[in-house]
Amino acid sequence: MAAEDKWKESLPELTEAIVATYADENGLHHLNRRPLPSREIVSDLVHDLLDVLFPGFGRRQNLHTQNVEYYIGDLLDNLLDKLSQQIRRALRHDQSKRLEIIDFEGIAQKKSVDFLRRIPTLRAILKRDVAEAFEGDPSAKTPQEIVFCYPGIEAISIYRIAHELLKLGVPLIPRMMTEYAHSRTGIDIHPGASIGPAFFIDHGTGVVVGETCEIGEHVKLYQGVTLGALSFPRDNEGKIIRDRKRHPTLEDHVIVYANATILGGETVIGRNSVIGSSVWITQSVEPNTVVVLEKPRLSIRGPKLNQADFYSI
Amino acid sequence: MAAEDKWKESLPELTEAIVATYADENGLHHLNRRPLPSREIVSDLVHDLLDVLFPGFGRRQNLHTQNVEYYIGDLLDNLLDKLSQQIRRALRHDQSKRLEIIDFEGIAQKKSVDFLRRIPTLRAILKRDVAEAFEGDPSAKTPQEIVFCYPGIEAISIYRIAHELLKLGVPLIPRMMTEYAHSRTGIDIHPGASIGPAFFIDHGTGVVVGETCEIGEHVKLYQGVTLGALSFPRDNEGKIIRDRKRHPTLEDHVIVYANATILGGETVIGRNSVIGSSVWITQSVEPNTVVVLEKPRLSIRGPKLNQADFYSI
Amino acid sequence: MAAEDKWKESLPELTEAIVATYADENGLHHLNRRPLPSREIVSDLVHDLLDVLFPGFGRRQNLHTQNVEYYIGDLLDNLLDKLSQQIRRALRHDQSKRLEIIDFEGIAQKKSVDFLRRIPTLRAILKRDVAEAFEGDPSAKTPQEIVFCYPGIEAISIYRIAHELLKLGVPLIPRMMTEYAHSRTGIDIHPGASIGPAFFIDHGTGVVVGETCEIGEHVKLYQGVTLGALSFPRDNEGKIIRDRKRHPTLEDHVIVYANATILGGETVIGRNSVIGSSVWITQSVEPNTVVVLEKPRLSIRGPKLNQADFYSI
Repeated sequence: MAAEDKWKESLPELTEAIVATYADENGLHHLNRRPLPSREIVSDLVHDLLDVLFPGFGRRQNLHTQNVEYYIGDLLDNLLDKLSQQIRRALRHDQSKRLEIIDFEGIAQKKSVDFLRRIPTLRAILKRDVAEAFEGDPSAKTPQEIVFCYPGIEAISIYRIAHELLKLGVPLIPRMMTEYAHSRTGIDIHPGASIGPAFFIDHGTGVVVGETCEIGEHVKLYQGVTLGALSFPRDNEGKIIRDRKRHPTLEDHVIVYANATILGGETVIGRNSVIGSSVWITQSVEPNTVVVLEKPRLSIRGPKLNQADFYSI
Repeated sequence: MAAEDKWKESLPELTEAIVATYADENGLHHLNRRPLPSREIVSDLVHDLLDVLFPGFGRRQNLHTQNVEYYIGDLLDNLLDKLSQQIRRALRHDQSKRLEIIDFEGIAQKKSVDFLRRIPTLRAILKRDVAEAFEGDPSAKTPQEIVFCYPGIEAISIYRIAHELLKLGVPLIPRMMTEYAHSRTGIDIHPGASIGPAFFIDHGTGVVVGETCEIGEHVKLYQGVTLGALSFPRDNEGKIIRDRKRHPTLEDHVIVYANATILGGETVIGRNSVIGSSVWITQSVEPNTVVVLEKPRLSIRGPKLNQADFYSI
Repeated sequence: MAAEDKWKESLPELTEAIVATYADENGLHHLNRRPLPSREIVSDLVHDLLDVLFPGFGRRQNLHTQNVEYYIGDLLDNLLDKLSQQIRRALRHDQSKRLEIIDFEGIAQKKSVDFLRRIPTLRAILKRDVAEAFEGDPSAKTPQEIVFCYPGIEAISIYRIAHELLKLGVPLIPRMMTEYAHSRTGIDIHPGASIGPAFFIDHGTGVVVGETCEIGEHVKLYQGVTLGALSFPRDNEGKIIRDRKRHPTLEDHVIVYANATILGGETVIGRNSVIGSSVWITQSVEPNTVVVLEKPRLSIRGPKLNQADFYSI
C-alpha cells in the first residue's frame, strides 16, 4: 500500500464520526428539507436590481436612449424568473410546518411582479438620497461620483430593496440582502427599519440601524453610529419578547456624528437635533437640541518620554 | 513606428527600474523561496469546512439522510488533500532557515487528520454558540436564520477552525483564515484568543479580540467592542516583548455593549458583569458589576438655528 | 396561454413604467454618455499593482531572481494597456462638458507611464510602513506575515497607489481604488489625504482618514479612529465650500488609540503625542501630550440580579 493510501485510511472513520453528529434532529444542519434561497443568486439579484435602479452605472456600460428599453426589458425578464424562484424557496422554507397545500409558485410570482411595480417609487426616493449626499459632502466632486463610488448609497439602495420585499411578506431574502450589503460596506441596516427619503450615511463602516428604528426625512448618519436596543423585555417564562419597538426614533433633519450610540425604543431625538461624535444617549431630546461630550481631561507629560511609557496609565 | 509602439518604448526601462529594487535581500518581496499558502485555496478550504460544520446551509443544497454521507465523504477526501498541501507550505515557510531534513508532507498529513478528528467537538461547541445567539437576539425569527445569515456566527466558526489549527502547531494559515473572516464580517478575532462556548457577537463590525484574551462561557459582545492591549512591555534593547498576556480576561456571562473598549492583560471583568456602551476601561471589575458612562452634557440651542452652525463648537 | 406566460404578461408594462423614469435628464442614470471606468478592471489593476509592489506575495508564486524580470515585464505590458484605457475613460467622463478636442489617449498613456515610474519610490515608502508595523505589533511573528496577512498594509498600499494617481490628475479612479480597499478592510482613507512614511494602522475596521488630513512620519492608528471634519463652511448662497482644509493634522510619532475621534481642519496634534482610546477631541494639543478619558463612573449592583435587568438604566 502506498504511503498516501495509508494516510487516507482514516477517511471512512472521519466521515462516519462527523456524519454521526448530523443525526440529532436539532443539530446544526439543514438536511431533509426544501432548499434555502441561494446566497449567490440573491447577491446576483441585488446587482441586477442596482442596474435597473441606476442604469449605466453598473455592469452594463454604453447604454443610451435607443437601447436601454431592450436591455432593461431583457434584464427584467430574467430577473422575474430568478426573483420568483428564490421567493418560492423562502416561502416554502418559512411555511415548512404547515400541512395544507399552498401555491407557493403563484404567490411568489405575484410578489415578484408587485415588487417590480415599486421600482419607479424607489427611484424617486433614491434620487432624494443622492441629492442629500451631494449637498452634504464637500469631498464629492459630482453626483455621479456618489452613485458610482459611495458605499453609503449602495447600502441604502439595498436596504430600500429589502424593505419593500419585507413589506410584501417575503421571508429570509430581505435579511440575506442587507447582510450582503453589510459584508461589502460595513453598514448593517435591518430590513425592518423604517427610513424616510433624503437619508445619507457617510463613510459608514460600523453603522447599525436596528429593526424597529423609525427615521424621518433628511437624516444624516456618520460612521460607527449605533441606533440600538437597551435591555430586552422578557415574558413570564424568561423568554425575550420579539416584535416590540426596541430601537430609537429620529425625527426629520437629525444629524448623528461618528461613533455616537443612541439606544432604546422610547428614545426620540427631536427634529433638527444634532448628536455629537462619541455621545452615548438613552433618553429623548427635544427638537433643536445639540448634545456633545465634555472636553476630555488632558494629561500632559514632559518632553523626554520613552514612547513605550506613553500609554501605561 | 506606430504611435502605440512609441509609447511602449519606456517598458524595458520601467521594468528594469522596478526589478532593480527587488535586489535588496530585505526588500518587500518573496523571491527565491518556497511558495506561501494560497489565499484562494485557504478561503476555499474555509467554505468546505463550513459545509462540513453546517451541512445543507452552504454551497450544496438538497442534502438528506441518504446522500449526506457520500457528499461529506467526497468533500473530506478533497479537503484532506488541499488542507495538507497548504499546511505543508506553511510549515516549510516557517522552518525555511533550518538545515535538517524534515518530513513536511508526513507532518502536514498527520495534522490534517488530527484536525478533522476535532470536527464533532467543534460542532458541539458551535451548537451552543447558535443557541446563545437565538436566545439573545429578538430580531432573529428562527435558529436557521442565525446559521444562514449572521456574520457573528460566520466569524466565530472561522475563529474556532483557526484556533484548532493553531493549537496543532500550524503556522500562518490560522491568521489567513481569521483575516478572511475579518474582511467578510468586520470582526477581527486573533486565532490565539481563548474563547469558551455559547459565545455570541451581534452585528459585529469593528469588533477586535486580541491574541491573549481569555473569554469564559456565555459571553456576548456587540459591534465595535475592542478587547485590546495597553502599552507593550519592551526588553533592555527597546524591542517589544512578544508572547506575554497583553489582553483582558472576561469571565462567564459577561456582556459588553457597542463600542466599549477594554484594555490590558491584567484587566479581569468578573462574572455576570456588564460593560456599557462606549465605556473605556483599563482596570479589573468585581463580579456582578455594571459599568456605564455618565449622561452626556446637554448643550441646547434656540429653535432658529442654521443647520450649518449646529456643530461648530 | 400557459400559466407562466400569463404571469409574464405584465413584463412590457413593468419595463415601460421603469424606462419612463429614465427620461429625466437629472435622473439617476448614466445614459447617452461615454462609459465610466470599469469597477472590475480597476480592482484587477489594484491586484496587478500589489503584485508589482510585493512580488511573490500575490497571485503569482514561485518567482525567483531568474524569472522575475520576465514576469514583471509581461505584467507591466498588460498593466500599461489596462491602466491607460481606464484613465482615458475617467478623463473623458470628467471633461464631458468641454467642447475642444482633447487627445485623451495620449494624455492617459503619459500619465500611466509617469505613474509606473514612481513604483520604486512607492516601494521605498512601503518598506518603511512594513518595518513600522513589525516593530509595533507584538502579535506579528515575521515581517512576511505583515505583508501577507495585514489589512492595514493592504489599505495603506492601495491608498499610496491612489494618492500618486490623484497627484497626476487622474479623476475618479483613485476614489474607486480606495473604496475597493474600504470594502475589503473597513479602512476608509481618502486618496487626497497626505500621509508620511512609516505609517501603520492596526486591525483597522472603521478607520476614516479625511480628504485634507496631513499626517507626518511614524504615525500609528488603531481601529475605529476618525480623522474627520467639524461643520462645513458655506458660501453666501448656503452651498458648502469644497476644497478647504477640513481635517486635522497629526505631526510625527503620534499614536491614536482605538475609536478615538479627532475633528477639525485647524486641529493639530503635536509630535510625540498620544490620543487615548475613545477620546473625542476638536482642539489642538502641544507636542508630547497624552490625552485620555477619565475613568468611567462605576455602577455596582447586588449579586442576585436577573440578567435582563442589568442594562435598563
